[in-house]
Amino acid sequence: MLRTTQIILILLLFSFFSCNKTNESQTKANKHTAAHPNLMLTVDGVNSIKKNLKTTPLFDQTLEQTKNEVDEQIAKGIDIPIPKDMAGGYPHTQHKINYAVMQKAGLLFQILGDEKYAAYIKEMLMGYADLYPKLNRHPETRSYARGKIFWQCLNDANWLVYTSQAYDCIYNWLSEKDRGHLEENLFRPFADFLSIETPQFFNRIHNHSTWGCVAVGMIGLVMNDDELVNRALYGIKKDGISNEALDNDGGLIKSKDGKAGFLANLDSPFSPDGYYTEGPYYHRYALYPFLIFAQALQNKKPELKIFEYKNGVLLKSVDAILNLTDEDGDFFPLNDGQKGMSYFNSSLISAVDIAYFYGNKNKQLLSIAKAQNKVQLDETGMAVALALKEDLAEPFEKSSIELTDGANGDEGAIGILRGTYKNQKLTLVMKYSAHGLSHGHFDKLSFSLYENGEEVIQDYGLSRFVNVEQKNGGGYLKENKTWAKQTIAHNTITVNQTSQYKGKFKESSKNHSEKYLFNSSNKKVQVVSAIENNAYNNVVLQRTMVLVTDTDLAAPFVLDINKIKSKNNNTYDLPFYYFGQVIGTNLKLETSFQLNTLGNTNGYQHLWKEAKAKPLNQFTQFTWLNHNKFYSISSVSETNEDYILGRIGANDPNFNLRRDPVFIHRKQNKSNTLFVNVIESHGTYNAVLELAKQSKSTIENTSIIYDDKDYTAIKIVFTNKEQRVFIISNTNPSENTKHELTIKDKHYKWVGAYYFNN
Amino acid sequence: MLRTTQIILILLLFSFFSCNKTNESQTKANKHTAAHPNLMLTVDGVNSIKKNLKTTPLFDQTLEQTKNEVDEQIAKGIDIPIPKDMAGGYPHTQHKINYAVMQKAGLLFQILGDEKYAAYIKEMLMGYADLYPKLNRHPETRSYARGKIFWQCLNDANWLVYTSQAYDCIYNWLSEKDRGHLEENLFRPFADFLSIETPQFFNRIHNHSTWGCVAVGMIGLVMNDDELVNRALYGIKKDGISNEALDNDGGLIKSKDGKAGFLANLDSPFSPDGYYTEGPYYHRYALYPFLIFAQALQNKKPELKIFEYKNGVLLKSVDAILNLTDEDGDFFPLNDGQKGMSYFNSSLISAVDIAYFYGNKNKQLLSIAKAQNKVQLDETGMAVALALKEDLAEPFEKSSIELTDGANGDEGAIGILRGTYKNQKLTLVMKYSAHGLSHGHFDKLSFSLYENGEEVIQDYGLSRFVNVEQKNGGGYLKENKTWAKQTIAHNTITVNQTSQYKGKFKESSKNHSEKYLFNSSNKKVQVVSAIENNAYNNVVLQRTMVLVTDTDLAAPFVLDINKIKSKNNNTYDLPFYYFGQVIGTNLKLETSFQLNTLGNTNGYQHLWKEAKAKPLNQFTQFTWLNHNKFYSISSVSETNEDYILGRIGANDPNFNLRRDPVFIHRKQNKSNTLFVNVIESHGTYNAVLELAKQSKSTIENTSIIYDDKDYTAIKIVFTNKEQRVFIISNTNPSENTKHELTIKDKHYKWVGAYYFNN
Repeated sequence: MLRTTQIILILLLFSFFSCNKTNESQTKANKHTAAHPNLMLTVDGVNSIKKNLKTTPLFDQTLEQTKNEVDEQIAKGIDIPIPKDMAGGYPHTQHKINYAVMQKAGLLFQILGDEKYAAYIKEMLMGYADLYPKLNRHPETRSYARGKIFWQCLNDANWLVYTSQAYDCIYNWLSEKDRGHLEENLFRPFADFLSIETPQFFNRIHNHSTWGCVAVGMIGLVMNDDELVNRALYGIKKDGISNEALDNDGGLIKSKDGKAGFLANLDSPFSPDGYYTEGPYYHRYALYPFLIFAQALQNKKPELKIFEYKNGVLLKSVDAILNLTDEDGDFFPLNDGQKGMSYFNSSLISAVDIAYFYGNKNKQLLSIAKAQNKVQLDETGMAVALALKEDLAEPFEKSSIELTDGANGDEGAIGILRGTYKNQKLTLVMKYSAHGLSHGHFDKLSFSLYENGEEVIQDYGLSRFVNVEQKNGGGYLKENKTWAKQTIAHNTITVNQTSQYKGKFKESSKNHSEKYLFNSSNKKVQVVSAIENNAYNNVVLQRTMVLVTDTDLAAPFVLDINKIKSKNNNTYDLPFYYFGQVIGTNLKLETSFQLNTLGNTNGYQHLWKEAKAKPLNQFTQFTWLNHNKFYSISSVSETNEDYILGRIGANDPNFNLRRDPVFIHRKQNKSNTLFVNVIESHGTYNAVLELAKQSKSTIENTSIIYDDKDYTAIKIVFTNKEQRVFIISNTNPSENTKHELTIKDKHYKWVGAYYFNN
Repeated sequence: MLRTTQIILILLLFSFFSCNKTNESQTKANKHTAAHPNLMLTVDGVNSIKKNLKTTPLFDQTLEQTKNEVDEQIAKGIDIPIPKDMAGGYPHTQHKINYAVMQKAGLLFQILGDEKYAAYIKEMLMGYADLYPKLNRHPETRSYARGKIFWQCLNDANWLVYTSQAYDCIYNWLSEKDRGHLEENLFRPFADFLSIETPQFFNRIHNHSTWGCVAVGMIGLVMNDDELVNRALYGIKKDGISNEALDNDGGLIKSKDGKAGFLANLDSPFSPDGYYTEGPYYHRYALYPFLIFAQALQNKKPELKIFEYKNGVLLKSVDAILNLTDEDGDFFPLNDGQKGMSYFNSSLISAVDIAYFYGNKNKQLLSIAKAQNKVQLDETGMAVALALKEDLAEPFEKSSIELTDGANGDEGAIGILRGTYKNQKLTLVMKYSAHGLSHGHFDKLSFSLYENGEEVIQDYGLSRFVNVEQKNGGGYLKENKTWAKQTIAHNTITVNQTSQYKGKFKESSKNHSEKYLFNSSNKKVQVVSAIENNAYNNVVLQRTMVLVTDTDLAAPFVLDINKIKSKNNNTYDLPFYYFGQVIGTNLKLETSFQLNTLGNTNGYQHLWKEAKAKPLNQFTQFTWLNHNKFYSISSVSETNEDYILGRIGANDPNFNLRRDPVFIHRKQNKSNTLFVNVIESHGTYNAVLELAKQSKSTIENTSIIYDDKDYTAIKIVFTNKEQRVFIISNTNPSENTKHELTIKDKHYKWVGAYYFNN
């Protein structure tokens, strides 16, 4: 570690020096930027920013905040600790601060021209150049790809992506000798370490590799080293890695087609719609290197036309991820996703600004930027700030959307239905995609439901406390595998208490669900339906979900139909992970003075069985209260079936899991069968007025009035005697086919895959 | 039920009629108000309001909202259903709407002069006058005092309190014949029913009786019936009720001194500080009749000087209840209290306006009124609105305060310590009061802790879903008795797994805790201490709590010392009802594949035992995360003691209880002993930045360095090597006494009951 007092002394000297020759140094800075910067900032870009300073509140405010933040760190002095611990610990956190502050100091040097920022970066880099050659791989051995500064190469790559930008900003300010020293002792070894020396990290299709490639590519661009840039773009040709090799999260190292490099990471995890197969949480994480490198390539190698690559997938991906958020901007926690991550994250601030600037100046993006209340300190951020000053923002309209998965968009999809009923905004997210690489869950045909930015039926997300040291150093907890990835942890059918694909990542990765239909043309009745053929041997699952937000009806609801075909007799479990307190049910619940788990494996070992019940008749209703809203599930039942009220948290010695409740519908000894449930948001409670409005379900009965291989028909009768019938064609999803069906003397005629009316 | 179409027809006729003679009718209304109204509104008050209409935004806005609300109800037509169900059901809810709308319509008639409001009230009253003589007691038999319109007299009394005001507003507008009809068939029988015919309801010291007395008193004032007014003020002389009689909540009917009536209800449940012994939730509920009747008495019988009664206790009580709220204005759920109830409730809007007007025009009340954003539609509300228009509001300063309990202020107290540490506002609420009548809990020396309006260590509150019909008709659930009132449900010592006073209401009601000291003069170190001598035979409990918010230290904390004296060997359990997820502990937790309850009775049957542990050394630490904040309990322990992680919810077949967690420190086979715990709020988590700040406790060790009958001394060592010593004199709470004590060669000298320093 460098001595803090020494550094402060040096900085004071510099500060004195720069005070006495501000004009001279600015001239020098301008002159020296002839070729640099040219990654995120460019010479022209800097001039344009300077011209517009003090004209836009948002840019000036971000600049001011950044300056305060960096000045505060400079005042603390330079601190480069010896690498030691996992995430959350002090050296880890300090190295993260260092690269973040260097990158920002670079921007400040360019924009403000104050050499104290350049001096700070130089000293920091010199310190790292002293330290780096002495480092072996990190002492913590948990990672499949141990770094040198951090416990995993991923964090080392983060360091280089940010530091490259800082280096670019002071490149011309540094002497040639200093540059030579840094490149020889720090940057080139660093780039080789991340790539040639750690191919299992670099040569993958994975967010880790995206960071690795971008780190190598960025420093290559600064150093004008085409060999490095090409290595970044196209990967290492011969890496010698086994096809079976796994990372420490259980993910495969080698991609299916053996491709690697930055462009391969664009080809494959992104669908043509811009959906990133690992899910929005990692999409957000990979988005920053994807876009910042694209911006750098656009500046330095415009001939690559990187923003047009794969029909403009990079910009589409920004639109996709913004659509994968709830009303508050929080990402849906599909696959491994930590709840609370949102489009307020800095990588999304960067993404929104870049997408606005390099895209078609979409004014809807401006309203997101406005909510973010921060911009990227470059030309893209200035463009956004200028547009906001001119009040050009338009609301970002999140409507129903299907985002295909797979490199070619043919590996299923995420279907999002959004509906509005009076002041209630409901969002249904259904997952019928591919597995999602190493961060995927065994959750085909699962769904989650949101109302006004709150979870109604939750997706559990991951089991991890990112950067909380006490919890396994901030890394994945073992319950992520034993619980969070298992099928029973999701709102979808588990067959015979076994996870989909027997919980085998390799098998699941070979397959995906198939879209059956997605139709959001009628805003009051929107339908998504998909089929899973491979998750279980000899079982075909089809789930159809209908979001009904018709104000002619007493409440909005989701009709959920799971049609199961099998030749064998099986046990089927369909859980609904609700939140809050049970208000009422027509089930006669049996509880016990002792709690047991629901099973021994496949996630069942983590569920306590709080109560069970056999339905009293063919209509079962369950009502709960959460956040002062009343919800009900109305369910078609048979008296030989089971309902289970469970709670997460068994076999969890470290209390890693949330004690959330679940309502499970179980059918035993069934081959073909049908689960029909209606999830309804029907009432409110006001604790100040002590007023319960419509605390009871508005549904009096739900029944299956027809079901064969061709059609399934469900009738819903409301307490106000209104009724509706939903019929779906099970064989023909076409929008144009004419159908006719007679059910109990009533003749139904319609065009398209489904019918909904009275 | 009256036919809606008939009513609409009548209203249309009236409306036509009044349109054609608006001026004439206004004159008539003015002329007729010579003597009436004279309860909440007065003739002069109405004139003054009219003069100030359209000058204050807040009054006009409230008036507009009220008009919309009432007009909407008038458009629906009159609906007087046959009484049938419990709270939450349709007839119950409709009758509540009726009286609320009548009262508002009366105000609108007076303020706006539009006769349609008078006509609406008249028709409604005529409908009730038709129905009332036909009614027997309500068919639902659960109440100890069944009403006629509602299942309990309490709601009938609500009806009359509101309806009296409506009647007052149209008194002069009605013909003498109509008045005679209403008084003979509705009002007088109604008043007699609530009092003479139901003395067990009327003649108590209880919020029920407050409503009953005020109902009778209000209608007496309107009818100029001094007999009724006196009955209200002084109760029924000979009620023939047994001294042992109980209500359906298990509360005693007869008061200790046998007194009854409105004034007795002011004498006894209110302490001289204005604390209402049932707790803030029922204080709020009783406050409206208390104040509205006081206002009416002030208008009609100013010679009573009701606002000066008992040294102005009514106005003091408004100040007291405002101090019994957290940073968001939510009441502390002491005794039976439903969470979420706050000073935004209409009775507090009324209370704040009345207290401003009849008090000393306290400008701090204006900031509460501003937050409430609504005023009472009378002279008091107009005064508040005018003052707000002139921008006179000052912040309502909630500081540390001790509110004595008991008619004479000598039955213990509620001690509230409030401290600020940077941006953290901490509030500690300690209860060492009397039992709290039928709504009291067995929770002597319990506490709760709040940070910035959020619960850190919770008081469970009641077990009830007020007005949610599915939950026992909105009434108390049996778990209120088996769980919520029991000692183990509170953050205080339970001895030998038995509740205080063996859970006997009668015994507990005879006793109260004793204040030892309350000192908030040093804002960085505030101390409250109290003693309980009677809750357990042969056990004396003293609890001392110190709120430390000294920014010289790394985090704010509460030092909690429970000193127990007993001749017998006992088991002591001290629970902390935290929220959120366990982050870490130095305990080696043992979990099981099966959950059992912690006991069979006294509330223990409702706790699941999730994990247990023996301390590994003499310092035990337990850290959790809630709402993105890290908290720890650091505890002095011995290796033969036990810690238990529990969860509420066992033996709860209807899922009435919240599944909240608890951390319990258990000492077995101890006679005299000392529990020392430090509860600390030390860190934050940001899910967008994924940044954990100070996720670990700042405390390295806590130890008892001295303990005998005279002094107890605790030493806290922080991870940054700072240390503090707290010494309390166990025998002398005086602020002036000089003390000297030598502990391990260090000599301490101080003045007052305690010492805190390094």
